[in-house]
Amino acid sequence: MNRKTAINPRRIENYPDWYQEVIKSAELAEMSSIRGCMVIRQWGYGLWQEIQRLLDLRIRDTGHDNVYFPLFIPLSYIEKEAAHVEGFAKEMAVVTHHRLEKKDGKLQPSAPLTEPLVVRPTSETVIGAAMSKWITSYRDLPLLLNQWANVVRWEMRPRIFLRTTEFLWQEGHTAHASKDEALRETRQMLEVYRTFLRDELAIPVFCGEKPPSERFPGAEMTLTVEAMMQDGKALQAGTSHYLGNNFAKAADIRFTDNNGEQQYVHTTSWGMTSRVIGALIMVHGDDDGLCVPPRVAPRHVVVIPANLNDSELSSYSNQLVTELKKIKFADRSLVVHIDNRERRLGEKNWYWIKKGVPLIVNIGNREQQSQTVSFIRRDGDVQKRQSLAIAEFIAQSGPLLAEIQNNYLERAQKFLAQHTNNEVQTFADFQQVFADNVFPQPFVVAKWCENRQCQRQAEEFAVTIRCLPSEQSRSTGNCVICCSKEATVDAVFAKSY
Amino acid sequence: MNRKTAINPRRIENYPDWYQEVIKSAELAEMSSIRGCMVIRQWGYGLWQEIQRLLDLRIRDTGHDNVYFPLFIPLSYIEKEAAHVEGFAKEMAVVTHHRLEKKDGKLQPSAPLTEPLVVRPTSETVIGAAMSKWITSYRDLPLLLNQWANVVRWEMRPRIFLRTTEFLWQEGHTAHASKDEALRETRQMLEVYRTFLRDELAIPVFCGEKPPSERFPGAEMTLTVEAMMQDGKALQAGTSHYLGNNFAKAADIRFTDNNGEQQYVHTTSWGMTSRVIGALIMVHGDDDGLCVPPRVAPRHVVVIPANLNDSELSSYSNQLVTELKKIKFADRSLVVHIDNRERRLGEKNWYWIKKGVPLIVNIGNREQQSQTVSFIRRDGDVQKRQSLAIAEFIAQSGPLLAEIQNNYLERAQKFLAQHTNNEVQTFADFQQVFADNVFPQPFVVAKWCENRQCQRQAEEFAVTIRCLPSEQSRSTGNCVICCSKEATVDAVFAKSY
Repeated sequence: MNRKTAINPRRIENYPDWYQEVIKSAELAEMSSIRGCMVIRQWGYGLWQEIQRLLDLRIRDTGHDNVYFPLFIPLSYIEKEAAHVEGFAKEMAVVTHHRLEKKDGKLQPSAPLTEPLVVRPTSETVIGAAMSKWITSYRDLPLLLNQWANVVRWEMRPRIFLRTTEFLWQEGHTAHASKDEALRETRQMLEVYRTFLRDELAIPVFCGEKPPSERFPGAEMTLTVEAMMQDGKALQAGTSHYLGNNFAKAADIRFTDNNGEQQYVHTTSWGMTSRVIGALIMVHGDDDGLCVPPRVAPRHVVVIPANLNDSELSSYSNQLVTELKKIKFADRSLVVHIDNRERRLGEKNWYWIKKGVPLIVNIGNREQQSQTVSFIRRDGDVQKRQSLAIAEFIAQSGPLLAEIQNNYLERAQKFLAQHTNNEVQTFADFQQVFADNVFPQPFVVAKWCENRQCQRQAEEFAVTIRCLPSEQSRSTGNCVICCSKEATVDAVFAKSY
Repeated sequence: MNRKTAINPRRIENYPDWYQEVIKSAELAEMSSIRGCMVIRQWGYGLWQEIQRLLDLRIRDTGHDNVYFPLFIPLSYIEKEAAHVEGFAKEMAVVTHHRLEKKDGKLQPSAPLTEPLVVRPTSETVIGAAMSKWITSYRDLPLLLNQWANVVRWEMRPRIFLRTTEFLWQEGHTAHASKDEALRETRQMLEVYRTFLRDELAIPVFCGEKPPSERFPGAEMTLTVEAMMQDGKALQAGTSHYLGNNFAKAADIRFTDNNGEQQYVHTTSWGMTSRVIGALIMVHGDDDGLCVPPRVAPRHVVVIPANLNDSELSSYSNQLVTELKKIKFADRSLVVHIDNRERRLGEKNWYWIKKGVPLIVNIGNREQQSQTVSFIRRDGDVQKRQSLAIAEFIAQSGPLLAEIQNNYLERAQKFLAQHTNNEVQTFADFQQVFADNVFPQPFVVAKWCENRQCQRQAEEFAVTIRCLPSEQSRSTGNCVICCSKEATVDAVFAKSY
């Protein structure tokens, strides 16, 4: 492809700059002047709203109810779980006053709080306090809650969608009578994330457990879904934690079991954030901009009449829009937009290509006279327009969208498979495949002895263990890092966001 | 009705305590230990989620796009509009640090911010800053944005759902080329609120303009929808503001018009909050608890089998649930829940009555053998069970729900009409109808001379002017307060939340 692409630079030239440029040209979001906080613009929020709707259905279908807890958490709550406070203390926004007053002609904080409040970085502690009131008997269990909310973690090196001081997410919090049940829940929610990513966002992942050093602060087990970006770096797209009795003890969440004995509950928590939009951009985007899987597209089809002052064209276009809106795709009626802005046709086509709209329809006199439509498929050559009889296009719009969705998934699956290296046996090989001049970087699935020391050695090359895959191979061998100790597990090694 | 009611006290005995008790027994929400902040529980959030879904549809149908702006606002933004900062300064939560550290063995705020950040009480200023970047030409107008978010206003006398430090809302923010267009938008969104309240929440309202003293800080005109609670007090359920050029000047939002001239945009903002749940409780609730209009019910039907160990009953109940789920009501498939908890039947019936579920179905051996269902209608006598053949009940479920929805609206309309007094002519009458021993209190629609002094005199009796109704009577007369000056407008006077 030698033609000029819509995004400059191209992926292969400068991947980080390409990422920024895709976001800018699709008008997804921008960093605000408030340090580390972003503004999610119309197209970006449209994506988030579809993501939220579809994930929410899956969370509710598995028996969870939505709730809403306070934004503010008292210091005394946060302190209760030692590992937890240790993990989050360095990145918490603290509210210390509840009023502004003019002093010396300058507006200043006044009315200090007796106990400072933290803006929630996550809600285990405040939800734990409520659980301890709500749960008294085994009959109150399991308690299956979920919350859609904003959270704040003060970010020293913010990166739009990937690491922002404020972000949007859902956080599930559940309490169970037994460890087994809590572990089943932890695994079930990881599976919800995996299938959601695959079926809605067309993103394939590696699933597995995080090594102990990478656990959520306060967790006994952290499961993760890890996606591969087109530069080969891993992006953690969702996590599910088994918290043991740690938070139950911290917040005193006990129940009377059916033998009349007092027991601590076992809790879990799990979350997926607005960072999945970053994953979507980096998994599917190409050198012409964003590519949106149709199932989460804010608009499925954009219709562009070539001439705004031609009433016949206009009525032909409107009729097409009306008919398309009657079509169902993935439980939604097609969302169809007509672009009547005063701009040139080519400019408008590129505008929607860069936003990743699956189908872009051009209507000119030729189309109107021959009762056809010309259209661009975002998953194909965007400089080539295809043509179909209008009735045929309407009838085929659903199947076409399904095909595009499927193409994105297959393309991503192929990429993941191609760039997953199962062959690395020695540390020399390991260093070589992760050399900085390799693009894209690989995922390496290799043996590990579970020694923290070996993990640290990999980290010196900016390579981390993303997860211990759920499906472990039966072969034996030595650890790929130290090459001396017998390995105990398979591990996925990669550079990451 | 002499029987013992599910809610104690009854409305007529102690309305404020009745309100708290309805919320508690329906498990809608509770105050948290974080001053003024509430926890919205499963049933309360289920209501909010339906409200949000339905209002969002109407906001998007009128051409607005959702966006998301930062939670934090720099002091320098807030200061720009003088009336705005004046109005909110006394109730703002201020973030001053971004880290916690152990000092003298105690966790304390550290890493102070150079410029303190305010937790948004509303987002005019931060959205204005973005608008000034996004808008350059008349072609960029109108800009029609909406945001679903949490906001914080430090509340000295919190009251659950009605006045809480943190609450959930949507806030619309639009920019227009002309005053006329902005005024049309302001009125259009009030009409969206009015019809939303009427058609979804079954709440009738008075619409009109607020007197100048009650305007939003920084607005040139504030429109409001005012609902009547069952104690006769008014509750402001939504507001829509025309902001003139005030925020455009503060944030420098200008555009080049089609003559090439630089102009300030005209902006509007409008919001509806989680306090409408308080309105829903107080408009529809009765002495047995909450009554939920079916269109916003988290569950339409709850099925309760009389015996959990009878497999025939269980399969009969499951079959009913399966069939009911195929029924559509108001664009949703019926949400049907089967209550299989180990509790007595009577206890379960009351549990769901107090939550306000529209239809509660009891299935026992008699029903199963005769292929019927017994059911309780929440809008009727909840101690009386009706009976229908099962097929008939399934076929009638949609129409039954529509009837219940309509009954709630008619009941509320009738109450509003009955307790609206258009007869008051003198200040003596005025004082008498608002005497403290009157229950419910009335709305008084009467003449006003628009003098702030007269308004203040009413305020001494805790009576405020809720709005100047959109439809003004043509009759003339003197002001109901001073009784000496000729009145210029009609006004709605009431006590209020």
